[in-house]
Amino acid sequence: MIELDFNITIVGLGLIGGSFAMALKELNPKNLWAVDISEDVIKAAEEKKIIDKGYLDPRIPLEKSDMVIMCIYPNLTIKFIRDNMNNFKSGAIVTDTGGVKEKLIEEIYTFVRDDIDFIGGHPMAGRESKGLERASKEIFNNANYLITPTDKNKEENIKRVEDIVRAIGFGNIVKLDPKKHDEIIAFTSHLPHILASALVSSDSRCNTKFFIAGSFKDATRVARINSELWTELIMDNRNNTLHQLEVFEKSIVDFKRVIMDNDKEGLMTLFEKGRMKREELG
Amino acid sequence: MIELDFNITIVGLGLIGGSFAMALKELNPKNLWAVDISEDVIKAAEEKKIIDKGYLDPRIPLEKSDMVIMCIYPNLTIKFIRDNMNNFKSGAIVTDTGGVKEKLIEEIYTFVRDDIDFIGGHPMAGRESKGLERASKEIFNNANYLITPTDKNKEENIKRVEDIVRAIGFGNIVKLDPKKHDEIIAFTSHLPHILASALVSSDSRCNTKFFIAGSFKDATRVARINSELWTELIMDNRNNTLHQLEVFEKSIVDFKRVIMDNDKEGLMTLFEKGRMKREELG
Repeated sequence: MIELDFNITIVGLGLIGGSFAMALKELNPKNLWAVDISEDVIKAAEEKKIIDKGYLDPRIPLEKSDMVIMCIYPNLTIKFIRDNMNNFKSGAIVTDTGGVKEKLIEEIYTFVRDDIDFIGGHPMAGRESKGLERASKEIFNNANYLITPTDKNKEENIKRVEDIVRAIGFGNIVKLDPKKHDEIIAFTSHLPHILASALVSSDSRCNTKFFIAGSFKDATRVARINSELWTELIMDNRNNTLHQLEVFEKSIVDFKRVIMDNDKEGLMTLFEKGRMKREELG
Repeated sequence: MIELDFNITIVGLGLIGGSFAMALKELNPKNLWAVDISEDVIKAAEEKKIIDKGYLDPRIPLEKSDMVIMCIYPNLTIKFIRDNMNNFKSGAIVTDTGGVKEKLIEEIYTFVRDDIDFIGGHPMAGRESKGLERASKEIFNNANYLITPTDKNKEENIKRVEDIVRAIGFGNIVKLDPKKHDEIIAFTSHLPHILASALVSSDSRCNTKFFIAGSFKDATRVARINSELWTELIMDNRNNTLHQLEVFEKSIVDFKRVIMDNDKEGLMTLFEKGRMKREELG
């Protein structure tokens, strides 16, 4: 069991923040506090005993927090850290959970105090639902966690973030630079969300539900999207996302060509290539 | 409980045929027989008591069967019915379970005897796995079943097929003409299989599994494809599939345009449209 002899504050008790609270509480940190804009959410979290205390005013917990975990939208994360620059404890680790890293980290580095260590993080554990009521520590089980350190981060602080996310259930924890992160995520996360939405939207019928099976349902699951959040993420990663869309369009053209040519061998080869790639993923 | 006071033969004890056997056995038909090319599979099915008896030689059960359910690939279905044209019982209902209907039905109608009623069927209950060992009557639970009658089919026979598939667990049963079926299925089934394969194939990395979450896994689940079967299905439905790929490409272009223009309102609108469409599907 990891020892957490320090104070942690979670900012934002939504699906991710709430899940962090549930998972961290079981590790018995010295104090586990939370900040949220909703009094009801704070009360609910206190009643569930997944935090020691919640606050509308961030100043009180931030002053004593050795670690702050930002669980709000990326642009709000930037605004919150900027607005509270003078409230953080000296030496605090501040980490976030946003899906895009380069732009966010660059912007935070323009104003963050030298005695605060901001470390980018990305739990790959979203759901198409949101809010504290959907939170659950199970969503972290064996999920991937990406940490995007820079030269400015202290080794021992990166390790502390890593130890904590491993202790709350994440499986693979990979460290990579923010730029590389965004390139890869454009493919593994932004692209599938756009495809799901584009697929369901290319439907001009109204009784489609009588003609679908698992393939269509799964392919479009994440079309139940949090439009505001995903618009923000994708616009913060525009060039990489456009590039991946273009690579994908080429794959579609390959399929169109063999179908048009009635090239059975060719179509089977494309499917086999995909099948083998997919099997590698487990 | 539906009464099945007649003999049924299932041709092909794979995932679908095996699941039909398991589900039909519970309805106590007079006799439930099966035909398969593998002695081992027949033995396994007999030992599991999901059929009364299995045969390598189709003549024996076909002569006495009032209903024959074809659970092999579409092209093999055509060949089997042609080869066994003289073995079917007069008045028998023959139905199939293939994913494409127009071409198959047209071809069968060129040689089928007048006293045999061939009715096209399509259980939308596939899995990315195959074989008797993966069969389970649960895969039919609340799934969609499409029946594609023509002028040649007798009303009471269509109703019999409908009653049976409802009795074994299918939820929505829709009757529509074969041409319309293939148009819709190109969108709801063939397109998502191609997209899954194209998505996983547009990956040039080798450690992708550390960077994925549920969205990528679900979007690519059916890339674990039975390449032979799906090549056959899609090539039998080429024009519809090409058309749907082109409609889909236009959706992608819509997304690219708003992302390129940094048009947040536009992207949010596209996502919202998709979200609402997806919610209708349940």
